Order: sequence, then C-alpha cells, then structure tokens
Amino acid sequence: MRLAPDQLDRFERDGFLILPALFTAEEIGILCAELDRLSAEDSPQNFRETKTGALRTAMGLHLRNAVYARMVRHPRLLEPAMQILDDDQLYIQQVKVNAKTAYSGEVWQWHYDFATHHNEDGVPEPLALNLHVLLDDVTEFNGPLWFIPGSHKGGPVSAELDTTTTSYPLWCVDNNTVATLTAEDGIVSAKGPAGTALIFGDCLLHGSPPNMSPWNRRIYSLIVNPITNAYTKQSRPEHQHHRSLSPVTPLGDDCLLSAGAT
Amino acid sequence: MRLAPDQLDRFERDGFLILPALFTAEEIGILCAELDRLSAEDSPQNFRETKTGALRTAMGLHLRNAVYARMVRHPRLLEPAMQILDDDQLYIQQVKVNAKTAYSGEVWQWHYDFATHHNEDGVPEPLALNLHVLLDDVTEFNGPLWFIPGSHKGGPVSAELDTTTTSYPLWCVDNNTVATLTAEDGIVSAKGPAGTALIFGDCLLHGSPPNMSPWNRRIYSLIVNPITNAYTKQSRPEHQHHRSLSPVTPLGDDCLLSAGAT
Repeated sequence: MRLAPDQLDRFERDGFLILPALFTAEEIGILCAELDRLSAEDSPQNFRETKTGALRTAMGLHLRNAVYARMVRHPRLLEPAMQILDDDQLYIQQVKVNAKTAYSGEVWQWHYDFATHHNEDGVPEPLALNLHVLLDDVTEFNGPLWFIPGSHKGGPVSAELDTTTTSYPLWCVDNNTVATLTAEDGIVSAKGPAGTALIFGDCLLHGSPPNMSPWNRRIYSLIVNPITNAYTKQSRPEHQHHRSLSPVTPLGDDCLLSAGAT
Repeated sequence: MRLAPDQLDRFERDGFLILPALFTAEEIGILCAELDRLSAEDSPQNFRETKTGALRTAMGLHLRNAVYARMVRHPRLLEPAMQILDDDQLYIQQVKVNAKTAYSGEVWQWHYDFATHHNEDGVPEPLALNLHVLLDDVTEFNGPLWFIPGSHKGGPVSAELDTTTTSYPLWCVDNNTVATLTAEDGIVSAKGPAGTALIFGDCLLHGSPPNMSPWNRRIYSLIVNPITNAYTKQSRPEHQHHRSLSPVTPLGDDCLLSAGAT
C-alpha cells in the first residue's frame, strides 16, 4: 500500500487525507463484531458519556482483543503512515474506538492532538499520525469529524485544558483561533461509507458535533508516533499513551480476514 | 405568490417545502439590520442559552419593531400559507428569530410544534404552519433544521415536556419514535443560502443540532393558525402565543424594501 504523489501533496497542503473504501464490508464486520462485548466491559479504559452513560471511547483495544491486536498492524494503515513520516520505526501510541452513540454521542470540542501529546505526554514534535477507519456509514447527521484544512501549517497554536464540557478532558483551542483558521478554506466534513479511512496529522485542528441521529457513528483510531519522538512524561494512564517503544511491523494484507476465520 | 401543484403535492407527501431564493439579499439585509439591537434587549421575550447567555430566541418581534411588523404581513409567506390551508382567516400565533449563535447555539431536540400548541395552548387541530426564512447561509456546519419527511402522516405522536436539556422548555418525542419515523425516508437537512424559505406543518417531526461552527445561523419564524382553530388556553405568555385573533392581511410585495427606505 503506497500513497500516490498527489495524495502526499494533498496531505501536506490540507493536513489530512480521506481514503474511500480502504477496508471491505467483511473486514468492517469483523471489527464491529468484537465491539459490543468490549463496550460493555466495566473498565477504566472505557470512557462513558456524562449524561447517558453510553460508551464514548474504548481504549487499549489491541491489548484487550485478538482482532484489534491484528488491526494495529494492518499494512493498509501502517504503510501509508511510514511513507508520510519517511520512518519505519513507529510505536503504537493509542488504540481506540470513538463510539458517538445514536441520540447521545456528545461533541468533541475544537482541538488538535499535539496539544495533548505535548502537554500531557511530553512528546517533543508534532509528528504523530492519527489513522481512522469508519466502522459505520458517516453522514452529516451522525457526528462526522470536521477538519479545518491547512490549520496545521502554522504549527501548534495556543490551547487550554477543558475538563468540563464532556467526560473526556481535552486540550482545546479558543473561538478566535477557529475563526482565524477557518477564514481561508472553511471546514471539511470527513464523511463516507463504512470502510473509509482518514489520516491526519498532530497539528490539524478538528472537532465533531454531537450525534442526535438514530444512527451510531463508530470510528476506529490508531495513533502512531516515531520512536525517536517518544513521550518523555507518563502523567496519563498506559491506555492513553502506551509505554512500549517496540517498532510496530505490518502483517499481511489479509490479516483481519484470517483473524475472523480462527 | 402561488405554490405550483407539484409543490402542494410535495408538501402533502413530505410535510415541508424548501423554497430557494424567496427573499433577496437586500431584504435579508433589512431584517438583519434590526436584530443586533433587539437581541441586546434585556427582555423576557429574549431567551438566552443556559451555558453562554448568547441569544437563543427573540420573540414578539412584530410588536417590538416596525420592520418585523411588516414582515409578518409579507405576501410571499402569507399567500402560500393561505393556499395550503385554503383559508384566508389566519392569525399571528408566534413571531421570532431563532439565533443559534456561532460556537454556542444549542440543540433543538426532536419535536413537533403541535405537541406544544395543543398541550400548552389548547389548539384543537394540527393546522398551524411554521414559515421560516433563513437570515444566514445555512450549511451542514451551523445547525440546520433537520426534517423527518412524512413524519406528519400518522398525526400526533406521543410527546413529553423536556425542561432540562436547554433553556427553552419543549415537548419532545422519544428515541424510539425517531427511529421508527426515520426508518423509511431518513432525514432531510434544510440547508440553503440566506433568503431561502421553509414551510412546515404542525405535526412534522424536526430538530436541529448545536452550532459549533464560527458562523451564525439566524432563522426568522412566523407561525400562523386558522382563527377557527385558535388557542383555548392561555398558560404561556403572550409572546409565545399571541392573543389577538384579528385576521392577518398581506401587504404589497415590496413591503420590506419600502420599510427600509423610511
């Protein structure tokens, strides 16, 4: 799996890529089949919505489940990441599903991931990549990610820790910054059928609205980071930033299908 | 201003109409020019968002402002309403702007207007029409109205008064009802440039998501009701259901422009 030159150009210009149909319906089915049980677990790795108790985020999945242990090594996500970073020595920083449950999934405020990675984990540079796979069809109605194209270009902007808006503390940017960064190219909604993949960088400003629709919006997210750019603080729990600095190696292209068969 | 037969058919089938470019940029400008001052008033007719104090809804506008006194008699809204209802004896039930301010405009939960009109005001039948004009460009990002097409067909569904979710008490429907009514034709987002008009009936299920974008989303709303179907209770304040049962009569097509000139 190699990105084409125009895809690399777009990633550099916009700060993100949307890759339609990167995973098949069968592969998505294998990933989803594991989720109900994982979501039901009473675990500190499962974050729940403040108001309803519905699952917001399930973390540490590759250490909790055999299918997700393969998914973190999937070549269709890892190889593009290695290509973008020009580095095949990456470690697994975070592995989760953001659930955004029908009727109750809450907002993710405007933020960029490096604010958290730098302030909480002491990551030196904004090199980590967030690799998403849509597990449900994502439309304008069920809380898509909203990207601000080009918002990564000036590097990290000012951010403050928000511990009140949702159940998940997050380093967020203020309204003036959002206004400034959207003034040029607006907002892009990362919609697509289940199986669509997204890749975005550590300084890309993004957020997502609540889900008041009757349709779930589950998204798988793997964050990888160069080993040379690893965390220097351990203030967050292991499942929010994994400690192992072993390089992650891709499996075969059929790794999910063969997992489903076992 | 007459609706075409296919528009009347669509209204009967879907429960709503979207009418692009019904008002000009100049007319929208005249309406918007009055709003900042009206919004700033410390009045019980101005409802504010719980969290931020930003304007949520400004009511009773035709009794507070000369431009809106004309707008409630605009023929491009009244004549289609009279045509749909086959009745030219209508009274002005409610006149407002729903502000949904950038960054802070909150959700309008899933509801239909007749639940409020019947339970609070004792309106006998679901005949009232809600006539909207978009005062800002409305996109997927700034909190458009979401209509459930055909949701009016079975008549009033069960509803309960929600006094906790937002600053505005509202008779809302439950998630199972939303799931049932969206199963056939999904959801339609009522987007369009400023000047677009919407017409929808008293049993149409609708809601709208919060506005976390940097763009305001102001919508003018006039509710008219046949005089023969008037309120029988006065439990809400006058600005939520006006008491005068005088028939409203259309002005000339240039009524806003001539108001702006004075």
